[in-house]
Amino acid sequence: MDFKDYLEELGKLECKDLFQNDFFLTWDKSDDELKAIFTVADALRELRVNNKSAKIFDSGLGISLFRDNSTRTRFSFTSACNLLGLEVQDLDEAKSQQAHGETVKETANMISFMADVVGIRDDMYIGKGHTYQKDFADYVKEGHEDGVLEQRPTIVNLQCDIDHPTQSMSDALHIIHEMGGLENIKGKKIAMTWAYSPSYGKPLSVPQGIIGLLTRLGAEVVLAHPEGYEVMGEVEEIANKNAQASGGSFKRTNDMAEAFKNADIVYPKSWAPFAAMEKRTEFYGDGKFDEIDKLEKELLAQNAQHKDWTCTEELMATTKAGKALYMHCLPADITGVSCDEGEVEASVFDRYRVPLYKEASYKPYVIAAMIFMQKIKNPKDKLQELWDKDQSRINE
Amino acid sequence: MDFKDYLEELGKLECKDLFQNDFFLTWDKSDDELKAIFTVADALRELRVNNKSAKIFDSGLGISLFRDNSTRTRFSFTSACNLLGLEVQDLDEAKSQQAHGETVKETANMISFMADVVGIRDDMYIGKGHTYQKDFADYVKEGHEDGVLEQRPTIVNLQCDIDHPTQSMSDALHIIHEMGGLENIKGKKIAMTWAYSPSYGKPLSVPQGIIGLLTRLGAEVVLAHPEGYEVMGEVEEIANKNAQASGGSFKRTNDMAEAFKNADIVYPKSWAPFAAMEKRTEFYGDGKFDEIDKLEKELLAQNAQHKDWTCTEELMATTKAGKALYMHCLPADITGVSCDEGEVEASVFDRYRVPLYKEASYKPYVIAAMIFMQKIKNPKDKLQELWDKDQSRINE
Amino acid sequence: MDFKDYLEELGKLECKDLFQNDFFLTWDKSDDELKAIFTVADALRELRVNNKSAKIFDSGLGISLFRDNSTRTRFSFTSACNLLGLEVQDLDEAKSQQAHGETVKETANMISFMADVVGIRDDMYIGKGHTYQKDFADYVKEGHEDGVLEQRPTIVNLQCDIDHPTQSMSDALHIIHEMGGLENIKGKKIAMTWAYSPSYGKPLSVPQGIIGLLTRLGAEVVLAHPEGYEVMGEVEEIANKNAQASGGSFKRTNDMAEAFKNADIVYPKSWAPFAAMEKRTEFYGDGKFDEIDKLEKELLAQNAQHKDWTCTEELMATTKAGKALYMHCLPADITGVSCDEGEVEASVFDRYRVPLYKEASYKPYVIAAMIFMQKIKNPKDKLQELWDKDQSRINE
Repeated sequence: MDFKDYLEELGKLECKDLFQNDFFLTWDKSDDELKAIFTVADALRELRVNNKSAKIFDSGLGISLFRDNSTRTRFSFTSACNLLGLEVQDLDEAKSQQAHGETVKETANMISFMADVVGIRDDMYIGKGHTYQKDFADYVKEGHEDGVLEQRPTIVNLQCDIDHPTQSMSDALHIIHEMGGLENIKGKKIAMTWAYSPSYGKPLSVPQGIIGLLTRLGAEVVLAHPEGYEVMGEVEEIANKNAQASGGSFKRTNDMAEAFKNADIVYPKSWAPFAAMEKRTEFYGDGKFDEIDKLEKELLAQNAQHKDWTCTEELMATTKAGKALYMHCLPADITGVSCDEGEVEASVFDRYRVPLYKEASYKPYVIAAMIFMQKIKNPKDKLQELWDKDQSRINE
Repeated sequence: MDFKDYLEELGKLECKDLFQNDFFLTWDKSDDELKAIFTVADALRELRVNNKSAKIFDSGLGISLFRDNSTRTRFSFTSACNLLGLEVQDLDEAKSQQAHGETVKETANMISFMADVVGIRDDMYIGKGHTYQKDFADYVKEGHEDGVLEQRPTIVNLQCDIDHPTQSMSDALHIIHEMGGLENIKGKKIAMTWAYSPSYGKPLSVPQGIIGLLTRLGAEVVLAHPEGYEVMGEVEEIANKNAQASGGSFKRTNDMAEAFKNADIVYPKSWAPFAAMEKRTEFYGDGKFDEIDKLEKELLAQNAQHKDWTCTEELMATTKAGKALYMHCLPADITGVSCDEGEVEASVFDRYRVPLYKEASYKPYVIAAMIFMQKIKNPKDKLQELWDKDQSRINE
Repeated sequence: MDFKDYLEELGKLECKDLFQNDFFLTWDKSDDELKAIFTVADALRELRVNNKSAKIFDSGLGISLFRDNSTRTRFSFTSACNLLGLEVQDLDEAKSQQAHGETVKETANMISFMADVVGIRDDMYIGKGHTYQKDFADYVKEGHEDGVLEQRPTIVNLQCDIDHPTQSMSDALHIIHEMGGLENIKGKKIAMTWAYSPSYGKPLSVPQGIIGLLTRLGAEVVLAHPEGYEVMGEVEEIANKNAQASGGSFKRTNDMAEAFKNADIVYPKSWAPFAAMEKRTEFYGDGKFDEIDKLEKELLAQNAQHKDWTCTEELMATTKAGKALYMHCLPADITGVSCDEGEVEASVFDRYRVPLYKEASYKPYVIAAMIFMQKIKNPKDKLQELWDKDQSRINE
């Protein structure tokens, strides 16, 4: 597909509700809206590859509010903002300063005077991250209506406790490119499986995001994990509903081998049990830090009982033609490389290094596409205009 | 007033000395110069509301040098710089590295090679902050004359030990908008009063900035605080002189109720006693950190004797028609919300939340106006040019 | 020389291999290539002095990856990027996360999705810094070839264990201006000498960079240090070879007075012994932190035996006409000012303060010139275009 095709595709999609709207969860959005974001991401990449500027802002700020560490999402957000003409300002705020509602309201207004977009990562506590983002969005909407803010900054969810849409959308865009089109995902078996990691408490938003998104693209999605590593029930329900609507399927199993068998795509990755994360949030709320330490030790011991959940060459050989696409959000825990025993054997990881990096490389464009759709009323016309204007990004 | 009115107003003002000059203290500036900054701040906001670019820099750097923590002033400075086309670079320097004069000179030159403006916050030690800023300005002036720097970066005081001009100017602009014009401040009773806070050592620059600025606008300014919480004598003298010149008045009282009675505006806010802050600076200079800890404890105990200095509904009812404008530089210590007992009752604060956020929203524009006036020789013509050019800030 | 002269000079130089290439070590580059960078640095400064924009990027990112602290190089890199139109994004990564090869590869790709240039400082461990930069460059080249990255970001060495080219090139450009032309360096005696400092482990890259660069400009370079403070043998060999090729000379002595005698330029500066730094790297690799502490104490004791290695007025009097140009990369350890006993007497330092600051002021332009040559195929034409276009940097 070339640029013209992207615009033609975009023209067919009903996506005007993305304008001036926030992006919290993929399942808030229609199929057309998600397709529009994939298409615009590809179109923006095409502009850049052709050294054409995609700047739609003369000046403006993108605020990044990370309540958890991040390197690659931070760089992706900065890249996306820069591509569109926004400067990034980080909020480095100790978490405690934003502990209760009053202060979130104030912070939301105080950092948004000239903000066009606010990217938020808040994935530490179950039941908190998504709520925080929604509250933030409500407060800046109110601030705009009250005349405090000249514009309503839109929110991009850079990971919450429920979903990680910029990750799952990048993953999906990678699959689209690998499979030669969105329509080719239909009927493919995708194994989203738990894998052993020596580290603790990895967020649930990646597996949840994947089962919530890929089920609606018509895939046969299998979620595999040891007993006790359940994800949020409400996201499983969404996955079920999505699968029914799309003609795909959603199954759960406690057997990694079963999930891998004949799979087109495998995504083995560690996460923490939802129930434990809920307990942890409770302890945190009550200031029971000793209990948190204890819980952490228990979880590590629990993890250690499942070291056999690892992506081996042997398992890979059981996938479709022994050639399933291996995926990961990175960084992975690689056995013998970044840890003694981890999520994946080094030889498997190495074989898929290039596709893994490509998978990651879609994230800046997915974020840029989300912002683009939030800010541009007629995205097709604007993209055409940027193409025709042909302003060199680097003026060699 | 619309954009044309702002330009007309600006045309009447004698303000050419702002060009290529630093902004340290409001009382360094003439009435016309301050009015020019208010007017340009409004005009820049008008440009932005109309989606017109206010970029006057094609490239360039704004350096932020914060020797004390800050979120809202930092974001305001970044917003102002971005609005005008400057990128912000923070100096994250441990305070100790800049301890003596030699090094200030070197730092000033080393970070200013391509700096157009340097925003400095240095409010920690009495007798130090303003001096530091003046020294910094002298050194970069010298550096420019000696051929080290191609341009002399101008300085914007983002808070020192004496004044907090970007705060007091934003506060005043808020009052101007609330009262329907600068001329309507004349004769209004403004109560700048101390209030209890469980935290220690809040800077004096806010009350000092307020009494130093509002007295010259013809207001009846009352400064109220418990005995022992005096502000700098030299600023009180300035307030007295200003009041005489403007036809307003300046009074001091140790009675909060008296200050509130019939007031049009109340600004209840905690600060540390000047004498104690002086002692603290002395201890710091001598490296007597034990003495500093002891002093801190004494001051907290002293504060605790004045918990009745708090802005209650009862007190608010005694103001003009029970409807005085409540002001604060934020964040406030709100009783039962951010602390057990604090500066203001929650119901009062909540009622004024929107005006409080608006008050804060002027700061980016005030800072931008200061920079604009420092850099643009014919501000009226330039603003007209920006309006007519009509370059979209966001190219929807 | 004016702008036209710079372009004429540039037209005579064979420098097309700088295009799309990294800058690791000055001795990787031809004489013409180095001259081209000096010339472009001067031309870019001329553009700025004349308020002409030097922006060649409409948007884009410069990544700064500092694995050691820095203020002035960080500000220089930011200034250079901003001058050309790039926004800077810092990578604040704990060193441990990049400990082995696998992760360097991943980091290199993950932070480079939209990077045009990556500036790296990695000078902490002998045998590591340069290797890290080369690996990084290989990985992003590979990432580009594999279709992960749309463009190959070029690397600028902002200091490694072997060379500090942005420092030595700035130093050389300072000398060129002081001496009235590159050709006047021929035959000048330059004393690069060790000097006492109470602090420990200063990098070797500055003396190594200086002897590696100035020997090829035809100078009579003398390297002086106490026994035991040898620099890397391979760099001395390069200095020897360079001197033979250029008609200059390279000598080593353990006598500071001999080096100063009749010198045109003196550069007294502390550094750590190479052998000790090698041992330190070994201990670090083996996790022997106790040994590192012990080594540090030994080195400080060893340093203290050479307090007489200091740049006094007496020594300065023995230089050519008593007027040698005193140089330093800053910050210097000044006796009685920043320490009790240090590298230089306060009166000497003070006398040379303006030239020292000028010396430092070339660094942003040298970095900008390196980036410019990496990105622009026909630098002469592009500079002419920027001059003629006459886009105001600040639109007064």
